[in-house]
Amino acid sequence: MDRDKILLTPGPLTTTLRTKLAMLKDWGSWDADFNAVTASVRKSLLAILHGQDSHVVVPLQGSGTFSVEAAVATLVPHDGHVLVLDNGAYCKRAAKLTTLMGRRCSVLGFDDAVQVDPAVLTQQLKYDPSITHVVLIHCETGAGVLNPLQAVADVCATHDKGLIVDAMSSFGALEIDARKTRFDALVAASGKCLEGVPGMGFVFIRKAVLDACAGRSQSLAMDLHDQYVYMERTTQWRFTPPTHVVVALHEAIAQFEQEGGQPARLARYTGNYQTLISGMARLGFKPFLDPAIQAPIIVTFHAPADPKYDFKTFYAAARTRGFILYPGKLTQLETFRVGCIGAIASFEIEQAVHAMALALLDMGIASGAPA
Amino acid sequence: MDRDKILLTPGPLTTTLRTKLAMLKDWGSWDADFNAVTASVRKSLLAILHGQDSHVVVPLQGSGTFSVEAAVATLVPHDGHVLVLDNGAYCKRAAKLTTLMGRRCSVLGFDDAVQVDPAVLTQQLKYDPSITHVVLIHCETGAGVLNPLQAVADVCATHDKGLIVDAMSSFGALEIDARKTRFDALVAASGKCLEGVPGMGFVFIRKAVLDACAGRSQSLAMDLHDQYVYMERTTQWRFTPPTHVVVALHEAIAQFEQEGGQPARLARYTGNYQTLISGMARLGFKPFLDPAIQAPIIVTFHAPADPKYDFKTFYAAARTRGFILYPGKLTQLETFRVGCIGAIASFEIEQAVHAMALALLDMGIASGAPA
Repeated sequence: MDRDKILLTPGPLTTTLRTKLAMLKDWGSWDADFNAVTASVRKSLLAILHGQDSHVVVPLQGSGTFSVEAAVATLVPHDGHVLVLDNGAYCKRAAKLTTLMGRRCSVLGFDDAVQVDPAVLTQQLKYDPSITHVVLIHCETGAGVLNPLQAVADVCATHDKGLIVDAMSSFGALEIDARKTRFDALVAASGKCLEGVPGMGFVFIRKAVLDACAGRSQSLAMDLHDQYVYMERTTQWRFTPPTHVVVALHEAIAQFEQEGGQPARLARYTGNYQTLISGMARLGFKPFLDPAIQAPIIVTFHAPADPKYDFKTFYAAARTRGFILYPGKLTQLETFRVGCIGAIASFEIEQAVHAMALALLDMGIASGAPA
Repeated sequence: MDRDKILLTPGPLTTTLRTKLAMLKDWGSWDADFNAVTASVRKSLLAILHGQDSHVVVPLQGSGTFSVEAAVATLVPHDGHVLVLDNGAYCKRAAKLTTLMGRRCSVLGFDDAVQVDPAVLTQQLKYDPSITHVVLIHCETGAGVLNPLQAVADVCATHDKGLIVDAMSSFGALEIDARKTRFDALVAASGKCLEGVPGMGFVFIRKAVLDACAGRSQSLAMDLHDQYVYMERTTQWRFTPPTHVVVALHEAIAQFEQEGGQPARLARYTGNYQTLISGMARLGFKPFLDPAIQAPIIVTFHAPADPKYDFKTFYAAARTRGFILYPGKLTQLETFRVGCIGAIASFEIEQAVHAMALALLDMGIASGAPA
């Protein structure tokens, strides 16, 4: 009765007790013990990216969006021109924060239900040579689309454009190899597929562009170059770090490595995804996306056609049985989302499907089939 | 042997086990249970300030500096002119972030060892009518000075200037009453005198100036007006909240209230301060500040004159005995700092003094007396 509910969301996620137990100590932010934890986290993050030779990693306080904003502020010069490849809500957020901070920003729009198209990007880069940087969301959790990172990176490399990747909900689960894929910055956060708790992000910056970033940020708190230089010199964070979040991430990464790293995490999430898809199909639910472009991170389902359905009741009925679902984020269509990530296994996804079956029963809905 | 060390720093601080135990659950950021925690925290914060009628409170992800930057970005119009009253390192940081974001910024400089002077402020406001906002650090932890908040607020009210107060290390411990003291914004954070864990700040904004703040911030993540409007409408944070930090603050505030609120917290810290001062005097140490302007938050001591002294060795020797000291932040003078805040009582300060006595003994130093 008092068990924690399982979070089937894009984050915050369900974490292990071991990760949470790491937060039962207080750490001094100036103390060598804590700074060794920060150093260890940074080293592990670079290893996950295979970025030891090519990139540095800079942690930042705040949510993932803070790190996306910091990456744009730090990487893009004041007279730069950012092109956002937009196929969802998080893309629109990236465009908004870029425009607000006063950087020129253009948007190349795609439908929510398709991947961004590298051929269209090529065309746009030829058409408008003033573009200096491209922003790509690797996994657009608005609908759940997996975007073609490698192909977009190749186009950017060919045209010598900077690429900023928001890999918030893919890093740690999907393969990203800095030795094969060229990007200037890649952003992720503690509370996603590494299964830490939320409260900090981190940005990988390509060494080749790092020095030129000095003094670009109009925000002191979000100046990743300044954070990097200070951290290298002192081993400390510039401003008070979220110490408990940092040590929880350290503990989460240790478990990530013990599980077998990114391939093992992907295998578990893929198992969760397949269990979800097949279970929901039995109930009549239909996913919004073509499986060919669906990341095994979060799945958008159409709302059932039955007029007795409404999300709040469905949510509450699943919640009573121990599972937290997530609302849809599409403006045109009624949908809901179910996450496959976090410290959960496919038997728990099976239980979640069963809870949703009982929720339908509660509501007198015979099938999850959409209109 | 395995006990947590006691943090005698300006934060992160020693917190209670009860506060840390609150972090052993995962919370969905969209879920009503979590949003009720956020609402409760906000209600309690307003009550501590006696600001229910005059102010709103907006929590923000990140360290306290993020909230200071957000307050300036949200409150000060693009053609505004900020005057920073500077008597220490945190004042200089406020001036730097204001200038970086492109707001006009002037600095009125005072010595590190004195309070800022309301009479000089009056003079400057008369001299330069283009000033729109004044920034004051309530307790400048660089040296530990308590600045005259009421007098500065009165000058700002008389001249109809906006006042932004960084009350990071005073809020919860020193009396701040919005019914008596007029300010447009006041900033503090989770990991200070409320004895939560670090990872979020919060900004009180005067209702009378709130509407005019719409659209001023050039940062999306730090737009407190947008955060406020979204939170009022949805009960949720705009971007992923540091859920574990929020519930820890909620639990810390419950203990704050049970202890007897701000007067009780001040009494405990004052006891810690007096124990520290008298104990250190026995060892020959001399505080940097005149006691009349010293806040009972963190105390700067002169380094001993003995040539055998160096801070790193002293720090390590105190650390071995379970106490984490803090380095000085004065550029001209060798000093170190000892905090009086956190979930500690005067008997633990007494133990800390004893540890420092043994540290001196280790180093062969007969007295802590400065040159």
